[in-house]
Amino acid sequence: MSKPTLALVGATGAVGTVMIDIMNGRKEWPWGEVRLIASPRSAGKKITVRGEELTVIALAPEVFDGVDVAMFDVPDEVSAQWAPIAAERGAVAVDNSGAFRMDADVPLVVPEVNSDKIADRPRGIIANPNCTTLSMMAAIGALHREFQLQELVVASYQAASGAGQDGIDRLQAEYAAVAGKDLGGKAGDVREALAAAGLSQEGSPFPAPLALNVIPWAGSLKEDGWASEELKVRNESRKILGIEDLKVSATCVRVPVVTTHSLAVHARFAEPVTVEQARAIFSAQPSVVLVDDPEKGQFPTPADVVGGDPTYVGRIRQALDFPNTLDFFVCGDNLRKGAALNTYEIAEQLAKR
Amino acid sequence: MSKPTLALVGATGAVGTVMIDIMNGRKEWPWGEVRLIASPRSAGKKITVRGEELTVIALAPEVFDGVDVAMFDVPDEVSAQWAPIAAERGAVAVDNSGAFRMDADVPLVVPEVNSDKIADRPRGIIANPNCTTLSMMAAIGALHREFQLQELVVASYQAASGAGQDGIDRLQAEYAAVAGKDLGGKAGDVREALAAAGLSQEGSPFPAPLALNVIPWAGSLKEDGWASEELKVRNESRKILGIEDLKVSATCVRVPVVTTHSLAVHARFAEPVTVEQARAIFSAQPSVVLVDDPEKGQFPTPADVVGGDPTYVGRIRQALDFPNTLDFFVCGDNLRKGAALNTYEIAEQLAKR
Repeated sequence: MSKPTLALVGATGAVGTVMIDIMNGRKEWPWGEVRLIASPRSAGKKITVRGEELTVIALAPEVFDGVDVAMFDVPDEVSAQWAPIAAERGAVAVDNSGAFRMDADVPLVVPEVNSDKIADRPRGIIANPNCTTLSMMAAIGALHREFQLQELVVASYQAASGAGQDGIDRLQAEYAAVAGKDLGGKAGDVREALAAAGLSQEGSPFPAPLALNVIPWAGSLKEDGWASEELKVRNESRKILGIEDLKVSATCVRVPVVTTHSLAVHARFAEPVTVEQARAIFSAQPSVVLVDDPEKGQFPTPADVVGGDPTYVGRIRQALDFPNTLDFFVCGDNLRKGAALNTYEIAEQLAKR
Repeated sequence: MSKPTLALVGATGAVGTVMIDIMNGRKEWPWGEVRLIASPRSAGKKITVRGEELTVIALAPEVFDGVDVAMFDVPDEVSAQWAPIAAERGAVAVDNSGAFRMDADVPLVVPEVNSDKIADRPRGIIANPNCTTLSMMAAIGALHREFQLQELVVASYQAASGAGQDGIDRLQAEYAAVAGKDLGGKAGDVREALAAAGLSQEGSPFPAPLALNVIPWAGSLKEDGWASEELKVRNESRKILGIEDLKVSATCVRVPVVTTHSLAVHARFAEPVTVEQARAIFSAQPSVVLVDDPEKGQFPTPADVVGGDPTYVGRIRQALDFPNTLDFFVCGDNLRKGAALNTYEIAEQLAKR
């Protein structure tokens, strides 16, 4: 049998670039032909994949002919239009956008949690979860298997790159504008420093300054004051874990970090759970790394986690006043496990079937 | 009757400096003599208070003779030694350290929540709460009066100045070291940039890099993996609100912000509560400012709140899956309401009695 053909749509974007890095780093390589696809503007660009220089081709229906798996790292509206076209032409579309995640006939997959759902894809589309949900799901899923999750209260510390390359560029420009200035003493100082550097608020992908600041807002406004990102955490967690009535409250906050999302997690289970049990479960899970010895300065931080594949967990504590409840802190690279890596892991499982 | 005498111990520190700013800004001024007190090293320094140049005097037992109220903005061990001496000499000591907060015979006061406790001070000492607890307490207390708080799950976004002037200086040095560098792509980059700028980890008041990072640790290690700061939020909230069995889980995280602590709050009450009711209560509370219109970019952020006296609240949502529960985001200047302002407000109430 010939090796399957893999396509990457959005090969030149922020997540696509990380995807190529991941493809270049894999030890096992089940694929035959690789096609890099992007908008017509990026077509013709040369990118080296596993030693072979490939030319980026422009998105068109016929580029999916003969493709077995097509990974999409593009905006929602591009996926909404093109993933069904890829599926019609015979590919399985693995989509990292928000276009299909909550559709009942599209599985939402984190391989270490619910890989059994991969086979059930009536529309030929598999969705990759939102980066904030994904950054904690490997850890949460491992605990849920043993103790049955019932409630989640989470607060996020989300990186600028969750808003793509624009987010990264903006944060770095803001850092440059405020560095060396004696800021923080009075209201308006940060906004003034940004304005003085020519960085208008209107030109930002964020709704407030991000340097020397945190912004309690991610996504768009949904009903009753909830942000879309917060509802994604709730609804996607329910779907991935298969818990229809999981109780979730999430507050999503952007922080001045380039890459790696962190979450403070308060998780209540049906069964009693101890810190020692949680540690044993995390240690046994290949995609989770336990970093939990605060006296020695050992806890996960974004600066140490960025660029890594696993989910890092630390600060595990038994809640003092809530039964069967753990509090912990989790970090995951939002461009890798939070986006490109999980998408690739789904594609890899398809190649092995 | 002659006007009371006010002393400020720790007049030259980070919080003491903000205290003098607050004293200079008050419209009402009930005090007669003002004494500025500091370590012998700072004695002799001149500081202008309300138009009068005062000379800082060295801490000694006799400096408290004739003092009515002595405010302490000094480290725990200095307060532990000197607040009782001030009380013995006839002053009421209002102490902003952690030395006495949990002592049963020392009231822990937030004037808009429990000013009735000010009169009950058998040891002549009144304690000011920890800055993280204080940053949310005006808002939480107002809701508790109406709906009876039962559970709190909070995650903090704490500013560098919570670690004093050393914390401010370190964060600004780290911002200067990383600005203009293309960081965030790989593990080690931030640490390398700091090392290249001569900023060793050992020389930091924080246990990890803070620029382009968040650190899930504040304070010292207590039993079962809890950080002292997290236990303070729990135990001080219980004492201030007078709820012995209040259920609390807190995760305290340092963020690269100079000043102003923020908290994501998940609060469950005994009584049903709506967003509209919460808004009405916050709007009616003089020390709380409601900033909550996310579609127009209106939510509290540290950059906009710093330098202000009130507690700013926004992102108020009814929890979708938890009864009688609100989620919201709160910001408070940790040097003002979180420290100096609350201490001064207690002193002011004493002057009026």
